[in-house]
Amino acid sequence: MKDLLHRLFTKYGFNDEKAKVLADTHTENTLAGVNSHGINRVASFLHLVSEGIVKTDQEAIKLNAFGSIEQWDGQFGPGVINARKCTNRAIELAKSDGMGLVALKNTNHWMRGGAYGWQAAEAGCIAIMFTNTKPNMPPWGGKESRIGNNPFIIAIPRNKGHVVLDMAISQYSFGKINEYRLRGEKLPYPGGWDVNNELSNDPEKILQKERGLPIGYWKGSALSMILDMLATLLSAGKSTSKIGEQEHETGLSQVFLCIYPALFQDPNISEKLINEIIDYSRTSSPTNLGSQILYPGERTLRAIKSNREKGMKVNKEVWNEILSLLQY
Amino acid sequence: MKDLLHRLFTKYGFNDEKAKVLADTHTENTLAGVNSHGINRVASFLHLVSEGIVKTDQEAIKLNAFGSIEQWDGQFGPGVINARKCTNRAIELAKSDGMGLVALKNTNHWMRGGAYGWQAAEAGCIAIMFTNTKPNMPPWGGKESRIGNNPFIIAIPRNKGHVVLDMAISQYSFGKINEYRLRGEKLPYPGGWDVNNELSNDPEKILQKERGLPIGYWKGSALSMILDMLATLLSAGKSTSKIGEQEHETGLSQVFLCIYPALFQDPNISEKLINEIIDYSRTSSPTNLGSQILYPGERTLRAIKSNREKGMKVNKEVWNEILSLLQY
Repeated sequence: MKDLLHRLFTKYGFNDEKAKVLADTHTENTLAGVNSHGINRVASFLHLVSEGIVKTDQEAIKLNAFGSIEQWDGQFGPGVINARKCTNRAIELAKSDGMGLVALKNTNHWMRGGAYGWQAAEAGCIAIMFTNTKPNMPPWGGKESRIGNNPFIIAIPRNKGHVVLDMAISQYSFGKINEYRLRGEKLPYPGGWDVNNELSNDPEKILQKERGLPIGYWKGSALSMILDMLATLLSAGKSTSKIGEQEHETGLSQVFLCIYPALFQDPNISEKLINEIIDYSRTSSPTNLGSQILYPGERTLRAIKSNREKGMKVNKEVWNEILSLLQY
Repeated sequence: MKDLLHRLFTKYGFNDEKAKVLADTHTENTLAGVNSHGINRVASFLHLVSEGIVKTDQEAIKLNAFGSIEQWDGQFGPGVINARKCTNRAIELAKSDGMGLVALKNTNHWMRGGAYGWQAAEAGCIAIMFTNTKPNMPPWGGKESRIGNNPFIIAIPRNKGHVVLDMAISQYSFGKINEYRLRGEKLPYPGGWDVNNELSNDPEKILQKERGLPIGYWKGSALSMILDMLATLLSAGKSTSKIGEQEHETGLSQVFLCIYPALFQDPNISEKLINEIIDYSRTSSPTNLGSQILYPGERTLRAIKSNREKGMKVNKEVWNEILSLLQY
């Protein structure tokens, strides 16, 4: 998959190095079980490239620096390349100063946000990262979508498997809701609004207008709004409001904050404290036969292990489309 | 209220300066409409003082510093005093370096977390702050409480009224659930688990075992766990696990992160971008006649205004208990 995507991205005008980063990231996202932001997303990403929305020859550049805080401009380059670069920079700042923050404007979709959390954790860094998006949820008390699902990532390095929270502020993604629709099932919990502005767990009804529900109702609505403010203010970039005015979801604002705890604390102490929390959570008896208590990121590690052993499941149509793009 | 509480705290052994900070904070929390962490909490706080759980003669001291990251020890002093001090220190670091992080261990309940968000915003700082707590929610998939509701604060300074998110990771506090119980009402949404380990919106049933529900179900469960990890690891303090082993909720771990945006960006730009987001959210038409779309912190500003105009509502029993403590 890496080789094939590498060739494909090169064909679409990315230089060798960028094509490799893109191919590796889309493949690793698929390996992590997130096909929706891996292999399934390649064709639509290339469509944006063809349209000139994602610029092959542009990447993030530093605009402004104050101590360990920097403002970067993504120049509408590929979101994955920009996010990799800004994560690297935040890691670099954290390793020299203890803490580093990179605020990025004018970027494109970063695909799986967790990828950058894992990247930071691999480098021994704690990370707090978030992005704004187009409006896809109504603010609490309103009908029309005015806030984004704004994925929010927290990562903590750990020898026995990094801890990585990678969550959108919506209760379910529309992709997930569509999976329930295809299986003819209801959502286990309400996941969006129907045409009568009532909360619903019926995928058909929610997908008619695609208005998602924030986690925790009014709480997630407030969290989404303030994350958009932080990303927009710190990067001096576009808010969800401005992104929504455009035809495509582009020009996003993102924040990459890294902390390097090994500079001020013995890593064995950190490791012990994290394991204490994980071990304690598992002393809660399972609600159902076979239900398990997982730490954030554990499901991803299991997906990777399973995919390594059994191979990655890829939809045949998705794969054929990629092959045809390569031959076209 | 300030004068009376000042005298009361002095009587319980706090020096004049600390008694004033405590009196001011409990009064301001009440003015902000959060009686549960203001006037209603004074008597139980003083009980902990009498028991020696909260130490009147101790306060947070710096243990360790690396650049703009510092580890402090609260020495089991009053949570409000420690949090005020650590917020001040994070502001100071942010104003010199752009960004400052203070991790505090061995502290006590900080009452209303939002108070420190407002404190930072008043000083022109963005703030991200959180605390761990005793276990009061089951992790997703488990029966017994093993994670805390870990209040999480984000603050952004703004001329026309600061934006302050102050939310626990639980959908409802037990105090709020009890208010529904007293009114004989059901919760509008599920808020905890009944004795049969089923989600419930019945206050009576939830309060039988006091097992709360995280916002967004599995998402809030993961968020709570990782906030506990961050607070514990960064401060090298007690986790929710260790706090739960004790008779009282004490020895908490907290994080105070401040960023001073005026160092790298014209405040007028920041102001404009935040207002753009607030204004846009209000273009969503209200779901109900009279429903309003509020930005985080707006409800607090309204409560302050209303309380200033009409006086603060204080429960008569609560007030009488305070008067009796003062005379005792």
